[in-house]
Amino acid sequence: MSTIDQVLAQIDSDLDNSLNRLFDFLKIKSISADPAYIDDCRNAANWLARELSEIGIESSVRDTTGQPMVVGHRKTGKPGPHVLFYGHYDVQPVDPLDLWDTDPFEPRIVTREDGSKIIVARGSADDKGQLMTFVEAARAYMAVQGDLPLDVTVFFEGEEESGSPSLEPFLEANKNELSCDLALVCDTGMWDENTPAISVMLRGLVGEEITIKAANRDLHSGHYGGSATNPNHIIAKIIADMRDDTGKITLDGFYDGVIDVPEDVMKMWDTLGFSTDVFLGDIGLSVPCGEQDRTPLEHIWTRPTAEVNGMWGGYLGAGSKTVIPAEAHAKFTFRLVGDQDPEKIVEAFRAHVRARIPEDCSVEFTSHGASPALRLDFNMPSLAKGKKALQDEWGTEAALIGMGGSIPVVGDFKRSLNMDTMLIGFGLEDDSIHSPNEKYNLKSFHKGIRSWARVLDELAQG
Amino acid sequence: MSTIDQVLAQIDSDLDNSLNRLFDFLKIKSISADPAYIDDCRNAANWLARELSEIGIESSVRDTTGQPMVVGHRKTGKPGPHVLFYGHYDVQPVDPLDLWDTDPFEPRIVTREDGSKIIVARGSADDKGQLMTFVEAARAYMAVQGDLPLDVTVFFEGEEESGSPSLEPFLEANKNELSCDLALVCDTGMWDENTPAISVMLRGLVGEEITIKAANRDLHSGHYGGSATNPNHIIAKIIADMRDDTGKITLDGFYDGVIDVPEDVMKMWDTLGFSTDVFLGDIGLSVPCGEQDRTPLEHIWTRPTAEVNGMWGGYLGAGSKTVIPAEAHAKFTFRLVGDQDPEKIVEAFRAHVRARIPEDCSVEFTSHGASPALRLDFNMPSLAKGKKALQDEWGTEAALIGMGGSIPVVGDFKRSLNMDTMLIGFGLEDDSIHSPNEKYNLKSFHKGIRSWARVLDELAQG
Repeated sequence: MSTIDQVLAQIDSDLDNSLNRLFDFLKIKSISADPAYIDDCRNAANWLARELSEIGIESSVRDTTGQPMVVGHRKTGKPGPHVLFYGHYDVQPVDPLDLWDTDPFEPRIVTREDGSKIIVARGSADDKGQLMTFVEAARAYMAVQGDLPLDVTVFFEGEEESGSPSLEPFLEANKNELSCDLALVCDTGMWDENTPAISVMLRGLVGEEITIKAANRDLHSGHYGGSATNPNHIIAKIIADMRDDTGKITLDGFYDGVIDVPEDVMKMWDTLGFSTDVFLGDIGLSVPCGEQDRTPLEHIWTRPTAEVNGMWGGYLGAGSKTVIPAEAHAKFTFRLVGDQDPEKIVEAFRAHVRARIPEDCSVEFTSHGASPALRLDFNMPSLAKGKKALQDEWGTEAALIGMGGSIPVVGDFKRSLNMDTMLIGFGLEDDSIHSPNEKYNLKSFHKGIRSWARVLDELAQG
Repeated sequence: MSTIDQVLAQIDSDLDNSLNRLFDFLKIKSISADPAYIDDCRNAANWLARELSEIGIESSVRDTTGQPMVVGHRKTGKPGPHVLFYGHYDVQPVDPLDLWDTDPFEPRIVTREDGSKIIVARGSADDKGQLMTFVEAARAYMAVQGDLPLDVTVFFEGEEESGSPSLEPFLEANKNELSCDLALVCDTGMWDENTPAISVMLRGLVGEEITIKAANRDLHSGHYGGSATNPNHIIAKIIADMRDDTGKITLDGFYDGVIDVPEDVMKMWDTLGFSTDVFLGDIGLSVPCGEQDRTPLEHIWTRPTAEVNGMWGGYLGAGSKTVIPAEAHAKFTFRLVGDQDPEKIVEAFRAHVRARIPEDCSVEFTSHGASPALRLDFNMPSLAKGKKALQDEWGTEAALIGMGGSIPVVGDFKRSLNMDTMLIGFGLEDDSIHSPNEKYNLKSFHKGIRSWARVLDELAQG
């Protein structure tokens, strides 16, 4: 039996243990956006460093001014390329909690009507379950061979869900230690549950939060209404004015740097059989809301967006309260594509907001990060090896796809470490990441581990 | 010493006891809008009925489908008009709680820098402190004379801050018991701290809440952003489109029935010395935001408004969350004037909203009440008596003023019981009703009690 076959057999026979370890990891409430969970984030980092070191990948927890990093190394002395594997141990907040069928931090296996099994928990798909596919593949290699097939550096962060403020300084401060020949990231999806995918286009992300302040206290809307400025109205105008009737974003220069996708790539995508009805139908919608002259696949892969992820002002409780609030708030994110400049988007957004603040009111801005979009080189040699490994495992040609979400670390790797990244992940559209009842298919977890074993094997072939 | 002088002396000597009783009342957390406080509302009703009965105004608590009513009577056999005194024992919610200097339900006396004293607590001004001015005046009369100078019915409700859903059915069901010659209400303000006032124009109030539903779950804004409808954007457009650049409300037919105030009334108001700079400066603002062709006094007394008292959707916690929420919400109130028809305003608002709901989204409406505006008869005989009583107490002519707030019960009294209402109150602009650190001046409380004693005395003169 070849080495890779032994490794795959080891993965199959150890699956129950792999799941138990994942469940231990999923129980840790590592919500990075909420300061209440700072200790849980550190616990998650400690847990990972211990697991990796036990396997034989010497690892340590590194402090930052935010959540800690985990860095581990396995030197093999073998000739293949030195790869760095990246993932994030932090997870999204869980609210609205009442929409979860069970406790988000009590992972469980659910058997669905069709007999398939899923792992339900916050972080099961994003990103704890995904990063563990690599860890478990490495574990199987160590169990079978006593070593990995090539040099591996493992790098996990805990701020991916909250703008990664410590990432770039950490990469800059640890350039020598972290620079490798190729980065591998498992934080993306398959095309569908039978078709593996490598993501080659990633949207960038700008996050901005605003607080509008008007009167020096909450006011009775009967005594002041009609004369005193209501900051809810200002927020509404800021949001409404950001979009015209055709779905275009109206920020000054917003589309500067947006690049139309080459025709051959668009043609390849036509073969993927994307269905707007299925895509929107799955989430209970039917009418694409974005730019009217673009398709939904363009909306989510190749076009920039402006979304209000949260807004609030005034009385949010039961019943009625006749108040004009002193403050109102909104959280925005912008997805960037092509060569859009994140700093210019921030500037254009802030100018748009400032132009709508009355002279006796004020606005405060908080940045939640800014990273450009990325396009990977279609001719990158490792791409062919990744495609072969995935086809061997799944029996179907891997799709090279765009991605609506943003993985800013890929840009940081390129900028700080001059390192290309291959994005292979096993998430599915219906995983409900960032939503209640997040899940990860057991098949994704199991075949994901097997896929990484094959990818490492292919890359080691030199 | 005349009777009224004896009564006034009794009020002065009993002030500390009056305050202790008010404090007991203020400690009851009778927030009618929040179902969590339903028992507290009943406790407040029970407390009032007990106090009134002890004085000699036989009172009872009456169940409704909402918060209970308190009704009491004192038959004197005297020839004067039979008056009904109305107040409300429920209070506004207290959030944001962190802006209160002390517990809103632990009333306290604060001495200000100028030596004046204020009573700080939720409900101190709106309306527990105000309604107690009448109760304490009646108590003093009973103590001095063993009776009141005319027949009095007392009527307190507990749903004024949440749309008074039980009020009209209760009035209809108890017409005979509650019909009197004149209603007295203490839920309004003075012109300034030295000038008493009788309110003769009241804006009406329509309350509407909307819930917009889009996708069947919260979505990752990276995976769906740009294509899936974001209900925050719909809410923003609904709000922004309700107002044009000149400050006019754009709802269809919104200004139908709005009546311009007669020139002589406007002239009288000119003599009041209203200052926009002071009015807005007190709340930290300087630019009137309403209709540009109107003054702030018109904005708040004579013009209709549309205010968003609360709006929310998506992630409201710390940091960033890349979510497109499944739902978004907003609470609106409209202040009505002249002959605006509340039902037509509701219809126009709902049509405005529905026209902005994409076909794959939905909206749910919740009504928080609808009442028309009111104008009182300037030649009502009791008005002259009220003015004389107030001038005797305060040494300054009472102003006949408009009011920005709404007191729907006045309309219900007119419609259901064909009863006119005289609105006399001792609140001040800086009382922060509906806001943190609500207060009522000790002077308002003390001279308010004395004022009601004088008003009852004047009205009893026949």
